[in-house]
Amino acid sequence: MSARLLMGAEVAAEIRAELRDRLEAITARAGRPPGLGIILVGEDPGSELYVRSKLKAASESGLRADLERLPATASLDAVLAAVDRLNRSDVHDGILVQDPLPPGIAGGTRAVFDAISPEKDIDGFHPINVGRLVQGRAVLVACTPSGIVEMLERRGIPIAGRRAVVIGRSDIVGKPMALLLLHRHATVTICHSKTPDLAATCATADILVAAIGRPFFVRSTFVKPGATVVDVGINRVSDPVLAATLLGPDSPRLAALAQRGSIVLGDVHQEVADVAGALTPVPGGVGPLTIAILLKNTLLAAEGRFSVAAGARG
Amino acid sequence: MSARLLMGAEVAAEIRAELRDRLEAITARAGRPPGLGIILVGEDPGSELYVRSKLKAASESGLRADLERLPATASLDAVLAAVDRLNRSDVHDGILVQDPLPPGIAGGTRAVFDAISPEKDIDGFHPINVGRLVQGRAVLVACTPSGIVEMLERRGIPIAGRRAVVIGRSDIVGKPMALLLLHRHATVTICHSKTPDLAATCATADILVAAIGRPFFVRSTFVKPGATVVDVGINRVSDPVLAATLLGPDSPRLAALAQRGSIVLGDVHQEVADVAGALTPVPGGVGPLTIAILLKNTLLAAEGRFSVAAGARG
Repeated sequence: MSARLLMGAEVAAEIRAELRDRLEAITARAGRPPGLGIILVGEDPGSELYVRSKLKAASESGLRADLERLPATASLDAVLAAVDRLNRSDVHDGILVQDPLPPGIAGGTRAVFDAISPEKDIDGFHPINVGRLVQGRAVLVACTPSGIVEMLERRGIPIAGRRAVVIGRSDIVGKPMALLLLHRHATVTICHSKTPDLAATCATADILVAAIGRPFFVRSTFVKPGATVVDVGINRVSDPVLAATLLGPDSPRLAALAQRGSIVLGDVHQEVADVAGALTPVPGGVGPLTIAILLKNTLLAAEGRFSVAAGARG
Repeated sequence: MSARLLMGAEVAAEIRAELRDRLEAITARAGRPPGLGIILVGEDPGSELYVRSKLKAASESGLRADLERLPATASLDAVLAAVDRLNRSDVHDGILVQDPLPPGIAGGTRAVFDAISPEKDIDGFHPINVGRLVQGRAVLVACTPSGIVEMLERRGIPIAGRRAVVIGRSDIVGKPMALLLLHRHATVTICHSKTPDLAATCATADILVAAIGRPFFVRSTFVKPGATVVDVGINRVSDPVLAATLLGPDSPRLAALAQRGSIVLGDVHQEVADVAGALTPVPGGVGPLTIAILLKNTLLAAEGRFSVAAGARG
């Protein structure tokens, strides 16, 4: 283990501390705290956990946070109606619909995200916010990639003139991540399942971002010695045989699995810690950043509504 | 000279021939041909030339094409008012504001492009169209990169699983080009002025797209033998000494320069023809494609307005 660990929780605490003055200012100006409205459809355990974390972080930071629950049997129209209520709400500046929607209406996910008012779209999923990101003038940018850039910058990891490789081309992480790094003058390569010689391509990176969704996929052969490796993976593993294969039979984490029924593994193999110069652990790396940026985006949305100059971030 | 030349005019003719039936169908349905409205501010000679080519191509193809001229002294409000008139026009399906605007109002270029109705935005510059491109569901996509993809596909040049390198990160060419290639399963790297080892990076490409705006910048050392090289550069050179340095003292093109006062050189050095497997010449390569896609986008916009299923292209 030689890599410096980039602890997202520490960076998240810095970000949240810096939001305090602005939160007070906008609260005074608006006559109320910034408000976050979350819509949760169904009872997916993972989603329940995420939503609880978001609500807790918001209220700890002095934001108003409301949860609207809909049953797993809710119609698409019912979800759209809930979005519409929050769009019209005077006290909600940011809106978040927890992904994924239940299987019966998952085909309507895009329509639901599109229905969120761009000014309240704190996930940065609305096409107009995505387009503004491409054009380098976005205010509301997808939380995870936005948080990763904040972490790199705050931890003094140079981006300009460096090579960045992003594995994964999702709308939520891969593509916005590539754009944010490009705008900060990295030379950016986007890899995916159809990339030939994936390991060799990744090994050219000064900054490697793994957002694939496959546990321990990135091995040490993928990593240039000294590179910064950002692990976006959150892979829940409950199979003890798979876990022992990935972690090795002596890993203390196997006991945690036996006790809790599952553990979370990143996309990056633990052996990478011996090669990378800096590494975000899973858990504890990227996850806390995402929530901190969600709060920041809610604040930015409130500032935008009350005409406080917010400045472009894309 | 070993490279196969990819002649844009031939591909453009194919595209335009294929539009004919659809043009007839939408003309019958709408009771009028699709209409293109072009706004030209000032009298920049290059812009005059482009606009004439666009008007000519449109009317040859059976589209209605109208030019609204404004003087170089026009205010930003006057330009926005012209955009507004075309937005409201019943007979114009596509709107194009010729770039660049005169220096006095060039700072308002973004505001002018933003004012164009997304449904009539045949240049694909509006943020909502750019966002839809990122999300792989765009109808109206920037003409030059869209034309390049059509040419590669029609000429049997494989994209999926190949390495593509795009030099240049403009909103109009570089970024949409990278996205279109990514969505077709290329592994895409975007390079720019801050890229270290630019030649070596380019030399990994199976498909190399040069959109830098520097004459003959891409040398044979940038090109993997057999690669496809797409030259987006349109660099007007009037200095005979510079031209002789770039082209060599025996080039027949120097006589053309002496006769006409200037010649157009691409971003790719002529020596690349000995290394590349396929190459778009300048002039005659990418240029004609851009205009063909402009016509296609006007047709798509008309089909969209009259509810003909157009299908996503991003």
